[in-house]
Amino acid sequence: MPLSSSHHPTRAADACEVRVAAALEGWRLELPSWGFADTGTRFGKFLQPTAAHTIEEKFADAGQVHLYTGCCPTVALHAQWDLPGDAAGDARAVLQMAARYGVRPGSISPTLFQDQEYKHGSLANEQPGIRQRALDHIVASIAWARALGSSDVTPWFADGSNFPATADMRQRKRWLTAGLARAHAALGPEQRLLIEYKPFEPAFYHTDIADWGMALLLARAAGPQARVLVDTGHHYAGQNIEQIVAWLLDEGMLGGFHLNDRRYADDDLTFGSIDPYQGFRIFAEILAFERERGSSAGLATMIDQSHNLKNKVEEMIQTVMSGQELYAKAAIIDFDALAAARGEQRLIDAENIYKDAFSTDVRPAVRAWRRARGLAEDPLAAFRASGYLERVARERAGHTATATSYA
Amino acid sequence: MPLSSSHHPTRAADACEVRVAAALEGWRLELPSWGFADTGTRFGKFLQPTAAHTIEEKFADAGQVHLYTGCCPTVALHAQWDLPGDAAGDARAVLQMAARYGVRPGSISPTLFQDQEYKHGSLANEQPGIRQRALDHIVASIAWARALGSSDVTPWFADGSNFPATADMRQRKRWLTAGLARAHAALGPEQRLLIEYKPFEPAFYHTDIADWGMALLLARAAGPQARVLVDTGHHYAGQNIEQIVAWLLDEGMLGGFHLNDRRYADDDLTFGSIDPYQGFRIFAEILAFERERGSSAGLATMIDQSHNLKNKVEEMIQTVMSGQELYAKAAIIDFDALAAARGEQRLIDAENIYKDAFSTDVRPAVRAWRRARGLAEDPLAAFRASGYLERVARERAGHTATATSYA
Amino acid sequence: MPLSSSHHPTRAADACEVRVAAALEGWRLELPSWGFADTGTRFGKFLQPTAAHTIEEKFADAGQVHLYTGCCPTVALHAQWDLPGDAAGDARAVLQMAARYGVRPGSISPTLFQDQEYKHGSLANEQPGIRQRALDHIVASIAWARALGSSDVTPWFADGSNFPATADMRQRKRWLTAGLARAHAALGPEQRLLIEYKPFEPAFYHTDIADWGMALLLARAAGPQARVLVDTGHHYAGQNIEQIVAWLLDEGMLGGFHLNDRRYADDDLTFGSIDPYQGFRIFAEILAFERERGSSAGLATMIDQSHNLKNKVEEMIQTVMSGQELYAKAAIIDFDALAAARGEQRLIDAENIYKDAFSTDVRPAVRAWRRARGLAEDPLAAFRASGYLERVARERAGHTATATSYA
Amino acid sequence: MPLSSSHHPTRAADACEVRVAAALEGWRLELPSWGFADTGTRFGKFLQPTAAHTIEEKFADAGQVHLYTGCCPTVALHAQWDLPGDAAGDARAVLQMAARYGVRPGSISPTLFQDQEYKHGSLANEQPGIRQRALDHIVASIAWARALGSSDVTPWFADGSNFPATADMRQRKRWLTAGLARAHAALGPEQRLLIEYKPFEPAFYHTDIADWGMALLLARAAGPQARVLVDTGHHYAGQNIEQIVAWLLDEGMLGGFHLNDRRYADDDLTFGSIDPYQGFRIFAEILAFERERGSSAGLATMIDQSHNLKNKVEEMIQTVMSGQELYAKAAIIDFDALAAARGEQRLIDAENIYKDAFSTDVRPAVRAWRRARGLAEDPLAAFRASGYLERVARERAGHTATATSYA
Repeated sequence: MPLSSSHHPTRAADACEVRVAAALEGWRLELPSWGFADTGTRFGKFLQPTAAHTIEEKFADAGQVHLYTGCCPTVALHAQWDLPGDAAGDARAVLQMAARYGVRPGSISPTLFQDQEYKHGSLANEQPGIRQRALDHIVASIAWARALGSSDVTPWFADGSNFPATADMRQRKRWLTAGLARAHAALGPEQRLLIEYKPFEPAFYHTDIADWGMALLLARAAGPQARVLVDTGHHYAGQNIEQIVAWLLDEGMLGGFHLNDRRYADDDLTFGSIDPYQGFRIFAEILAFERERGSSAGLATMIDQSHNLKNKVEEMIQTVMSGQELYAKAAIIDFDALAAARGEQRLIDAENIYKDAFSTDVRPAVRAWRRARGLAEDPLAAFRASGYLERVARERAGHTATATSYA
Repeated sequence: MPLSSSHHPTRAADACEVRVAAALEGWRLELPSWGFADTGTRFGKFLQPTAAHTIEEKFADAGQVHLYTGCCPTVALHAQWDLPGDAAGDARAVLQMAARYGVRPGSISPTLFQDQEYKHGSLANEQPGIRQRALDHIVASIAWARALGSSDVTPWFADGSNFPATADMRQRKRWLTAGLARAHAALGPEQRLLIEYKPFEPAFYHTDIADWGMALLLARAAGPQARVLVDTGHHYAGQNIEQIVAWLLDEGMLGGFHLNDRRYADDDLTFGSIDPYQGFRIFAEILAFERERGSSAGLATMIDQSHNLKNKVEEMIQTVMSGQELYAKAAIIDFDALAAARGEQRLIDAENIYKDAFSTDVRPAVRAWRRARGLAEDPLAAFRASGYLERVARERAGHTATATSYA
Repeated sequence: MPLSSSHHPTRAADACEVRVAAALEGWRLELPSWGFADTGTRFGKFLQPTAAHTIEEKFADAGQVHLYTGCCPTVALHAQWDLPGDAAGDARAVLQMAARYGVRPGSISPTLFQDQEYKHGSLANEQPGIRQRALDHIVASIAWARALGSSDVTPWFADGSNFPATADMRQRKRWLTAGLARAHAALGPEQRLLIEYKPFEPAFYHTDIADWGMALLLARAAGPQARVLVDTGHHYAGQNIEQIVAWLLDEGMLGGFHLNDRRYADDDLTFGSIDPYQGFRIFAEILAFERERGSSAGLATMIDQSHNLKNKVEEMIQTVMSGQELYAKAAIIDFDALAAARGEQRLIDAENIYKDAFSTDVRPAVRAWRRARGLAEDPLAAFRASGYLERVARERAGHTATATSYA
Repeated sequence: MPLSSSHHPTRAADACEVRVAAALEGWRLELPSWGFADTGTRFGKFLQPTAAHTIEEKFADAGQVHLYTGCCPTVALHAQWDLPGDAAGDARAVLQMAARYGVRPGSISPTLFQDQEYKHGSLANEQPGIRQRALDHIVASIAWARALGSSDVTPWFADGSNFPATADMRQRKRWLTAGLARAHAALGPEQRLLIEYKPFEPAFYHTDIADWGMALLLARAAGPQARVLVDTGHHYAGQNIEQIVAWLLDEGMLGGFHLNDRRYADDDLTFGSIDPYQGFRIFAEILAFERERGSSAGLATMIDQSHNLKNKVEEMIQTVMSGQELYAKAAIIDFDALAAARGEQRLIDAENIYKDAFSTDVRPAVRAWRRARGLAEDPLAAFRASGYLERVARERAGHTATATSYA
């Protein structure tokens, strides 16, 4: 369709709107609760007067994003930071609180890296007691997820080592395997365990789950409800993320995404801010797969960013808008023409089909979709006009945020 | 043992010699036939008057390396360059020729990247006829290997694409899977299929078998005699190769190595020339695994370098000497003390056990092992003194080597 | 302007057309003669029946690109491949030949890497005779450039080493400094010496001019007519190219570009094919600089790609179209609004000004500019319809191209 | 000398001892005060009961390192963390305190990244008031350095941006240039300004002083007493650090080092823990330069590591021991033989001269040097036997360290 846009601009624009609307209608982005809190780098945090400090403030902020974008009904929670209590006793209150702000809990992340006990790892720690503690926490997170009606539990393991020789990497692999199998056994029938990988940081010599291959082997060993979670920032320079996505889809092992962007390492930058064409290509792989199968790939798509400098609610809205734009561009790829060009090895034509879709300005179509759903055409402008930030800056003024120091 | 070397230097040196000798005694390095031929970069080849042009010259050169090092009895062959004929008819002559030079054929590499037909790939090509041609060539290579008494067939697939959109990566994965399964079916009971991975070059946007995870999935799908081949130069910057080795060993899926070194990409530099400590750590993982299991890991260890500037025979001897030195250093690691330090999370002690072994000068022990086997203490000096290069420079003067031009 | 495009679409589109036309009117892309010849990787060349083998065929092909795009009047020549003769005697014939095809010679690249003598480098070689040979060739290239009316001489030095210890890097720096000063002394008053840098390949341990800092120091030492040439593919992963461009502009030391794209190393892929947003940002730095200064930065903008798989003329037209699109997107950045947003540290607003321009579909405006200049709206389609490729495939069928082999 | 070690082992060992002793005698490593404090990653700090919290505790810990190694008489201080007061009034007390622990203050680092005001940079900030504040702090640091008798002021600028478009990189370059010139004007005649570079973190899109070329231009613009500081962890993957060192030495612009090691990014790992051969090569460049010039290069060599997991005093001693070993290996390179091999382009011989020195076990020679200076042969063992850690663990038990949380 984009190819012919020059000849019948009105008709092409209409067709574009139809396809964009169909794509956006079914697309949801989950918001991270920690994306509304003060975060930073090891060199310190830059605190914001409107940052959220409580789970309620996080739900409130997330509710604003959903209010203006219409596609973010769920909020990922981090167990230690958001759910200090007991699932059996406290889940109802959390659900009610979320509902008051128009959202509901999403995936649950166990917190396995921050406590002093995890200095040498969690589920791969040499000490059995710490492995057990980590497992208990994952199982508790699974219980929380069930009580909150969330399907996905998303552990990220910071486990690894900083210096050669200090860790028995094969033994740690076996501990991880055993622990994940036991965690999997605690899943309810509707639940999934999504296993994330990351090449480095905070472990700098080796990370126990360093790449998608390791995550896949662990997920396969854990059980049938385990999948791999792809964090777009967790790759080596030059690695082809969309190829990994394609392989995981083909293996039936892709569970979802943590979306963000990066330039050098895991920089947790706004999705689409550094390399938008890569985001487009990842979406293209997913849409091609779903089109071929005739059904959804069942992926959880979560934003995972820590924006230290931009206002957090604004940046989350900016992210959703960028994500929708890239997803819409991928949705108007002429996949039939692409298959034909590939089959005939017409490289330039195949490439130009991608480029045509990417060059198309889909923003009018996205705005039309928003209008049709009763949403503001420009969610960021509408949010800014609402006075929300000014209000919470006053309300949250009393909160004492803790600045941090490198040393 | 290295830890105590300062206290009883003579006894420690004796113990070191014993362990080094035990390690070197069972260690073999396979030589690549193409390592004796003129190679280069896309910007041209720098030709050498002593370069080998025929399989006989390659056997002759390899025979020299084995003569002086005593640990390189086999020569890896590349089907297209070395075995143009028919296995049934010509294998005996090849075997006899090798024997004349004191070596025998080793692993067989199908040549799947050079012919014009492979412009868009071999086993993952869109065209069924080219896929069949590639498969036939692999099957012929398997036949060659069987006829030559070689167990390992080592295909490297340059398949991939150079531009986004031009290739259906999932479809190509399925073609590769199917082709490798058919190749596996042609294996004899003693044969293995070793599948290599490489992140880039000559395909610059995506490579169909880009990393160890892809190679592992394909090997598992191909059949029980397929394993992964680790080329040390085929990794992303910052990737932890020894961890990959540890995982593949634990999965029972490591088949062997192509040893070389690199700084930036796949530079095919002399093994140990850039990062010797990394080579040591890789060997440490293998030796720890074998020690734990009480048996050999059954790995094929091949050199795969293309030295454009150094004299090829000399550089191969240099490589063997470097490799033996790093392997010997890994063999004197105090693994019991290491296990204790790891178990008690004494990081500095664990690290220093590696560093102690690496800091130890094992060259006297290696020389002692050579003496005991009747070899020259300094293989490079002995080779240089032999006059071999001067002789072949004269003999090969008539051969016409082809210089190449970038454009 | 892009920001307001939703409110007065017609007026905004008109303004966009005006700015795009103004930008494109003054923008020229130089074509590389070697981009029309058969090239490849070290694993071989994939030959094309329409590839150019002579300078005349290269001029003919380049003339086609210029005929359909209207912005490529000059052709960069490589001394050894294109100008085997003597400048004094042969320049007139070259000029006449180029003119016959509607183009003229552009920058002249000395060829300093291919001859066997350059095994250990050219101007940084340990042997004085080879340094002199290299200098003589550069001086001859300068003479060729002057005779052809070309201002820019663009040496790329492959000089470097492959293994630690083998080169005296400081001494080589001094040889390069001395040689470039002597080359500079041969420049005519209108000529420039553009010094290129590259981190690796074909030298794999160290490259004598590895980064922009080294190129800048050498250019400053060479003389006032020396500048730095930025090849977009010659950077480390993660390096911020637009920042380097900004610094070189601020220092008055940027001479021009070799445009291409890459994913991993120096892959010489089609400009804009991998990371179009990066190309946009580079152009944005240039346009911002020129806008601020009120004058042209005087940059030579050359395409430097070796497309092994795509048809070479088609891919060159595709490149020009992509380049114009990215340049046009950069030209519609609202720089006044950007300055205001930066000054007030409104990060999201500043970022969105870039994103707005990048999201705008400038292709209608580019087509309008082409129409106004009497060019085909779709240069690639027009070229394809011309029958040129079919004709030269027949004409060039007799030529014998040399396939290459890795080993 | 290493080359002949097999033939006259005793004589060779003696010669080795002489050269190692001569090298170590003049070599000093400065300790970072912050290396004794609790540090961590953005995901949290792992607190140590023996970590230092006050400048006095840091001097005490550093004094231990110097007591056992004999080569670390100075301690680098960070202005904000260590010198909260006024130089005029408080310097005498700081000097007396250091002296009590057998050390003295070394280089002074202004702290320009932690305060909330520096959210968008310090000397490159858009706001003049913040630029002035940063300049005042640098000038105050210079005053502190003078009052403490320290020659080197070592600012590290975290300035940069996280998203494209948000910063005017050229303008920020000019602000940095102006600010550094004003800082330089405050230097006393014996003082130096060492300018550090870093490619990323905590700024993730662009860093204002990203590489050695930028640092060099700024240092040249600042004035004759400005030099470049090379932090070994602040480079792109694959970058040749020893080449940068060689160029800076040749330009007379190298001021010193921050030593550490890394695998992926700026991981601040123990120097020599990941790639010891690289450390050796850097030292080789320095020693070759000094040997050639016949005088010291005047470099400040500082350790800059943040060891989150190892005990801090122990790891600092381990670092000094590793550093001395690598420096001693570089000192026994046979530079005359190297020059000859390079001149004749005997690559393997040249390379083996490095490898011979690196393979030599210099630990006996280092131990001999320690004995001759009345130091313990094994500083780490001696320190451990002293009971210091047990004592300070008790004494520092009352201190309240602050654990940090990512979000």
